[in-house]
Amino acid sequence: MKQSGLGGGPQTLRLMNCAAVLRAIRGQGSARARELMRATGLSRPTVTAAVDQLIEDGWVEEAQTADHDLPRMGRPARVLRFRANARYVVGVDVGPNRVQCSAADLNGRIVAETRLTVSDQSDPEALLELVTTGIRDVMARVPIPEGRLAALGVGTPGVVDARRGLVVRAPSLPGWDGLDLGERLGRHVDCHVHVENDVNLAVMAEQWSGVGSAADSLVLVQWGARVGGAVLVHGRLHQGAHGAAGEIGFVELAEEPAAATPDGLGPLESRVGTSWILRRARDLSSGGYADVGEVLHAAGTGDATALRAVDEACAHLARGLAPFLAAVDPEIVVLGGGITRAGDVVLDSVSRHLARRTLVAPILRLSTLADDAVTLGALRLALADAERRLLDTYAPSYSTTAAEEIARGTLP
Amino acid sequence: MKQSGLGGGPQTLRLMNCAAVLRAIRGQGSARARELMRATGLSRPTVTAAVDQLIEDGWVEEAQTADHDLPRMGRPARVLRFRANARYVVGVDVGPNRVQCSAADLNGRIVAETRLTVSDQSDPEALLELVTTGIRDVMARVPIPEGRLAALGVGTPGVVDARRGLVVRAPSLPGWDGLDLGERLGRHVDCHVHVENDVNLAVMAEQWSGVGSAADSLVLVQWGARVGGAVLVHGRLHQGAHGAAGEIGFVELAEEPAAATPDGLGPLESRVGTSWILRRARDLSSGGYADVGEVLHAAGTGDATALRAVDEACAHLARGLAPFLAAVDPEIVVLGGGITRAGDVVLDSVSRHLARRTLVAPILRLSTLADDAVTLGALRLALADAERRLLDTYAPSYSTTAAEEIARGTLP
Repeated sequence: MKQSGLGGGPQTLRLMNCAAVLRAIRGQGSARARELMRATGLSRPTVTAAVDQLIEDGWVEEAQTADHDLPRMGRPARVLRFRANARYVVGVDVGPNRVQCSAADLNGRIVAETRLTVSDQSDPEALLELVTTGIRDVMARVPIPEGRLAALGVGTPGVVDARRGLVVRAPSLPGWDGLDLGERLGRHVDCHVHVENDVNLAVMAEQWSGVGSAADSLVLVQWGARVGGAVLVHGRLHQGAHGAAGEIGFVELAEEPAAATPDGLGPLESRVGTSWILRRARDLSSGGYADVGEVLHAAGTGDATALRAVDEACAHLARGLAPFLAAVDPEIVVLGGGITRAGDVVLDSVSRHLARRTLVAPILRLSTLADDAVTLGALRLALADAERRLLDTYAPSYSTTAAEEIARGTLP
Repeated sequence: MKQSGLGGGPQTLRLMNCAAVLRAIRGQGSARARELMRATGLSRPTVTAAVDQLIEDGWVEEAQTADHDLPRMGRPARVLRFRANARYVVGVDVGPNRVQCSAADLNGRIVAETRLTVSDQSDPEALLELVTTGIRDVMARVPIPEGRLAALGVGTPGVVDARRGLVVRAPSLPGWDGLDLGERLGRHVDCHVHVENDVNLAVMAEQWSGVGSAADSLVLVQWGARVGGAVLVHGRLHQGAHGAAGEIGFVELAEEPAAATPDGLGPLESRVGTSWILRRARDLSSGGYADVGEVLHAAGTGDATALRAVDEACAHLARGLAPFLAAVDPEIVVLGGGITRAGDVVLDSVSRHLARRTLVAPILRLSTLADDAVTLGALRLALADAERRLLDTYAPSYSTTAAEEIARGTLP
């Protein structure tokens, strides 16, 4: 029989009670002792002792009670709430063109953002320097003092070994192959650093706060100049045995595989990405569009030439996506990234082409997270770690459960 | 705080103790009281009472002790073992050409088998009749008396709604679309019937007793006249949102999707299945091979024409499999089914073609389960249910854990 983790003396029990009370306060937003007794099954003196300890440790504070609660007989009951700003987390989206950083409190509320443009795309050290600048900048804006950053989450394109914080292969970031990103960033911050593939973070964001919430299985296609994918199965991220699950951009459909492209694009993304769409729309119109934004906007408003370029890309994407979906048979397929600027015409077109190629047509949705998907996912990854460490300080046996609940979106 | 399930009176506790002792005996094969005390943390009188109850209920028996244990002071200690033949399970593999049934005891030891050939492939009721004949036949061979069959597992091709026991779509079994197979077979047996896609069962068998044991993620390609696939992720079967995960045979690679084939074959399987290989080898040799077995054997022994036909099929399979694997990035890819008769040349060829099409080359293995993969998986499914129900009779709170342990191969 498996034993519960209730070994140890009265000190262990006191810490377990702190963890239980803390989780009850987190779950309810704010609460009085009576509500905490009900939620935890603990006695009033035990709850009071735990609350006092949590206040002393800085995780809980007394909220101002509203006037209409007064006057009452005797002393008014304390309303307790979690000090969400006791610590912060930072999420970073590293891309070939820009670095985006967001800071959030422990309730996941975003309190600062910064976006930096990459000037020299060929210098790997310059990009790393830009990332640390972005982190410093977003921390200064809050401000987050030294020691109050609980965790850092970083999303980066390519194949990532999340366990080791390693960029294994990053075709779009010159010189980053093999970069120990977790260690390099760890030199600049006093907290744990989590590195993950950017599209994996975006799919976590879809589950957390996007159109994919509550889905048990979900495929995200992040479609911009590059095209990446990520897979949620059994309600959680599937990274793959080599961290490469979901890499749809490198799908090769031709009978004879093409040679590698000079820009590091995979076979599918080089044929359907937004750069291809722009080229194709210009070819069809003898150079009529200023940029891809104009093409996508035009397609969304019914421009026949732009629609044709988008539809050709959708047809080709469906060819690569159909066998991909045959493996997963997901509840929902979410299309995210720059392509969403064209709106529903993309959904309609992909849906039409997929219907002819799949045994079961999936539900298709457009992401609503725009450019923020990766930083949101990075914040979520950092928050899960912060929550785990917070509860760890009281009762280590709680940590796994809490991390799982965050992953499911039950907390915070 | 989550409470443990230790509510209820002394009767509940006695049943919990029975379940704990039963699991300890199952885990150790056979055991003396002293070993059971150590494994469960229960006192000698409690263990003795539980053992007596389990003997009375027919789940445990005293084994004959070996002579060298004697003579001893006082009464020799009883050696207790699980009565694996107290109940049986039956696993069935339903195919368009044959029906295979196996019976096993509660330790998963196969005690009888029967194989029947389908004579009229166009009559759905005749096939159903053949299945019930097979089940009756294999039960008579053991024999398994009425009431001693604990569970029945059935594998069938196509899209299956496992929860409802429904054949949703079965292109290779005429007239079975929409068949309520669980209910129909339930009329003939006095136990729970579990219906699952045949390749899903084969992948469970690979994890249970095949080359995929211990893999956290695994893709099986079951390659015969038809080509099916199944996916294990996070250590367990992924059925997909519509029960269609892994259906690689219906992958469509052509720019223009082909019309449905008259034989119900999907686009990929009609171009790589063993029927195609036979046709191709005959074309290349002006009708030189008697059957596909001869082609595969010839390829295995270096015959250039047979090798070419097999290699062309492998090249095309790799085209469809690469995007499929891009979604999953599995630890291992297992090739099973009739194709394995060609041996390592198939591995070499698929591996070579995949290497040019995948970001990360997977580990490829040939299945060693031959024709038995589906029945083995069906037995395993039935065993997991039987184990759960057995422990349910004592302590319902145990059941989920037990089923999960069976799924992981820890039990029986």
